[in-house]
Amino acid sequence: MRSGASFRHGLSQSHDTHAIWTVEAVKQVKYHVIATRDLFDPSNTRLLDACPEAPLAPGDRRLLVIDSNVARLQGNRIESYFRHHGVETTMLSLRADEAVKGWDTVTTVVDAMNAFGIDRRREPVIAIGGGVLTDVVGFAASVYRRGTPYIRIPTTLIGLVDAGVGVKTGVNYGRGKNRLGTYAPATATYIDRTFLRTLDERHLANGLAEILKLALIKSAELFGLLESYGPRLIADRFQGSTGDLDAAAVAVTDEAIHLMLEELQPNLWESCLERCVDYGHTFSPTLEMEALPTLLHGEAVCIDMALTTVIAHLRGDVGAADTDRILDLMTALGLPVWTDVLARPGILDGALADTVRHRDGHQRLPLPLGIGRHRFVDDVTPAELSRALGVLGSIQARPSALVGGRP
Amino acid sequence: MRSGASFRHGLSQSHDTHAIWTVEAVKQVKYHVIATRDLFDPSNTRLLDACPEAPLAPGDRRLLVIDSNVARLQGNRIESYFRHHGVETTMLSLRADEAVKGWDTVTTVVDAMNAFGIDRRREPVIAIGGGVLTDVVGFAASVYRRGTPYIRIPTTLIGLVDAGVGVKTGVNYGRGKNRLGTYAPATATYIDRTFLRTLDERHLANGLAEILKLALIKSAELFGLLESYGPRLIADRFQGSTGDLDAAAVAVTDEAIHLMLEELQPNLWESCLERCVDYGHTFSPTLEMEALPTLLHGEAVCIDMALTTVIAHLRGDVGAADTDRILDLMTALGLPVWTDVLARPGILDGALADTVRHRDGHQRLPLPLGIGRHRFVDDVTPAELSRALGVLGSIQARPSALVGGRP
Ligand SMILES: NC(=O)c1ccc[n+]([C@@H]2O[C@H](COP(=O)([O-])OP(=O)(O)OC[C@H]3O[C@@H](n4cnc5c(N)ncnc54)[C@H](O)[C@@H]3O)[C@@H](O)[C@H]2O)c1
Ligand SMILES: NC(=O)c1ccc[n+]([C@@H]2O[C@H](COP(=O)([O-])OP(=O)(O)OC[C@H]3O[C@@H](n4cnc5c(N)ncnc54)[C@H](O)[C@@H]3O)[C@@H](O)[C@H]2O)c1
Repeated sequence: MRSGASFRHGLSQSHDTHAIWTVEAVKQVKYHVIATRDLFDPSNTRLLDACPEAPLAPGDRRLLVIDSNVARLQGNRIESYFRHHGVETTMLSLRADEAVKGWDTVTTVVDAMNAFGIDRRREPVIAIGGGVLTDVVGFAASVYRRGTPYIRIPTTLIGLVDAGVGVKTGVNYGRGKNRLGTYAPATATYIDRTFLRTLDERHLANGLAEILKLALIKSAELFGLLESYGPRLIADRFQGSTGDLDAAAVAVTDEAIHLMLEELQPNLWESCLERCVDYGHTFSPTLEMEALPTLLHGEAVCIDMALTTVIAHLRGDVGAADTDRILDLMTALGLPVWTDVLARPGILDGALADTVRHRDGHQRLPLPLGIGRHRFVDDVTPAELSRALGVLGSIQARPSALVGGRP
Repeated sequence: MRSGASFRHGLSQSHDTHAIWTVEAVKQVKYHVIATRDLFDPSNTRLLDACPEAPLAPGDRRLLVIDSNVARLQGNRIESYFRHHGVETTMLSLRADEAVKGWDTVTTVVDAMNAFGIDRRREPVIAIGGGVLTDVVGFAASVYRRGTPYIRIPTTLIGLVDAGVGVKTGVNYGRGKNRLGTYAPATATYIDRTFLRTLDERHLANGLAEILKLALIKSAELFGLLESYGPRLIADRFQGSTGDLDAAAVAVTDEAIHLMLEELQPNLWESCLERCVDYGHTFSPTLEMEALPTLLHGEAVCIDMALTTVIAHLRGDVGAADTDRILDLMTALGLPVWTDVLARPGILDGALADTVRHRDGHQRLPLPLGIGRHRFVDDVTPAELSRALGVLGSIQARPSALVGGRP
């Protein structure tokens, strides 16, 4: 679909024995992802004026929902920013990690919206935190009075390049990862890596897993950047303490966001189920939920990518040297390529079956083609899975095992 | 917006000091409202083939969620229909009335969807019941995996002409009527007044209140039909036991649905807040929640309409004779024009303030202009409310009090 396409909409009525009405309509969606540096420096006015649909001015009031860790580490600065600009805030500080990503946390946000007496057209909720916080607040806002605008300010790397830039909201339900949710973009997302200064290395690596995903399926160039700078970006927490590292931090995050939005925009509601950004997300939902709370989201994704890279390798789609490079980079970034959950009987077949149910009866499995390209397959068999698992198991203890020691 | 309009969509990027991405997309929505008679007569195949987007064939399986009263009264017939057509069903029978219209009931539906292992592209949930049941199932389906299709089969008059034909889903939260919900149309709604045969008179009158609403704001002709046939339609439960009553039942329901869809289609997501179908819904949400469980939805709407008819009368917009006709018809249909909740100090001002918050800071109050037309006003004052309340209070005990006895 390109600009200028035309759509039917209206009310039509037909009759055979009885009336049939058909209602057709189109909904327009528009949102912004706005990069900045040091959003809460008092002299930075992006939050006030960069998004035409959500201006903020002295005298306004806003409900802020903030991850309690971020509130503890950076809350004072944030509050004084709003005070400085004459915006009256009510701050709900919320524990927001995977273990509490459920409906109860949604109701806490809803209660705060009720208590605030939010004007649902003019007072977007401002969500500040990692992917859990923005997913939960996004869900709450999207169902509050059937839709209240919200603003996202991601504070983790996963948030900056993934959870914060798409349109999905959600919470876990029972064993179901993100089982309940909506498609509801934030009016604006502000991208500011300054927040990462207090994020620990494990969560930085976690975000790099999603960036690596994009590199593997879409950009050899980004893969190269990660090889050259990845570990140093982690050590530097993306703060750009040298010119080189600053340029690398900008290049990596901007490129990741751009690649991500390029894939999302034409398929915002996932009507097309062949989504290359689902790479790494075939087995990982099951691994993540089974291993809870051991594996982070990006870690589970990385293990899925390690396994599917080996599958692609065994199919002849990724050479031995590239397979080694990929697994080596994962390890260099501090990411796992293995979890013992993988070895539980039937786990992978079950995960694949669940994904197939989610993808309309087909596997639609994105697999890497070399580094930076991909294809979709529909014919992965249990035997192939178990073979790949064996190979991954045997090499995971000794990286760079394929070249010269190919199993 | 008319067919052939063009929309911007795509990904655009701009730079000042930092990158800004703008994502624009359009979502197409299409759904059907399909009138039929005796949907679950084994020879009726509408459910199998009338909706191209949701065909049903022997060998398919479906999750049915059914109002427990409907299950008790008409469940056997429904089950044997599916058996007859070789469709394997799992039936969740659910208590569904205003008092249980909350998140807990949503989770009961979600649990059933989980247990059923629903294929979210090919196995729409079938919701059979009144407005509460279809609102709850619609909400559950719309958030399950961020959107699972569902089919509505309304079994109350409110369902047939209102809850079943629009796109709103929702549940109550705390004191907030439909505080949480989504815009998510059923793929198809089947309109079959056969169900009304077991519905009691009070709930039939309740549905007629919403039909009367449409008549008051949009159609003098429909108002005339209600005057001529309303009470007899109730006694006959819309079953068409004479040719006359059958024609009247078809005319009243079809016309109500048509008038409703005409208003909904151009404004499905309520981006325009001047909605004439909000007539009767300014004070009623508060009245309904305050009086819970005394007043039914349509009864609260009727009281709101009685009050606002008097407001319009006092403004000179509805003549004395028409005001009498309106209040008389309400009474003839067995609908209330008064509740003692109205007399609680501040209740109307509070209700108006809440509605204003919901309507972007303006009253946008639809008021009747004679019978069959309307206008919007923004300037209702507390003094005016209290005067209208006094007038309504004094005439409610003696209908037809205005002509010849105008206060
Ligand atoms: N909506 C989407 O499209 C999408 C995409 C990817 C991931 N997700 C979701 O995102 C979640 C993962 O997000 P995440 O990785 O950000 O995890 P997270 O939100 O759990 O945050 C990780 C931890 O870091 C803490 N934290 C956050 N910001 C911090 C900061 N600046 N300094 C110090 N500590 C900080 C948090 O309190 C938390 O303990 C998953 O639930 C996943 O399903 C959603
Ligand atoms: N989504 C919308 O656009 C919309 C529009 C109008 C109303 N609503 C909602 O609809 C609800 C009111 O709907 P309702 O009036 O259908 O009430 P309801 O769903 O509570 O049903 C009324 C009663 O009738 C019973 N019942 C249902 N069908 C029956 C049948 N055929 N025979 C005998 N008993 C039957 C039910 O068990 C219930 O006890 C409200 O919650 C309101 O918010 C929604």
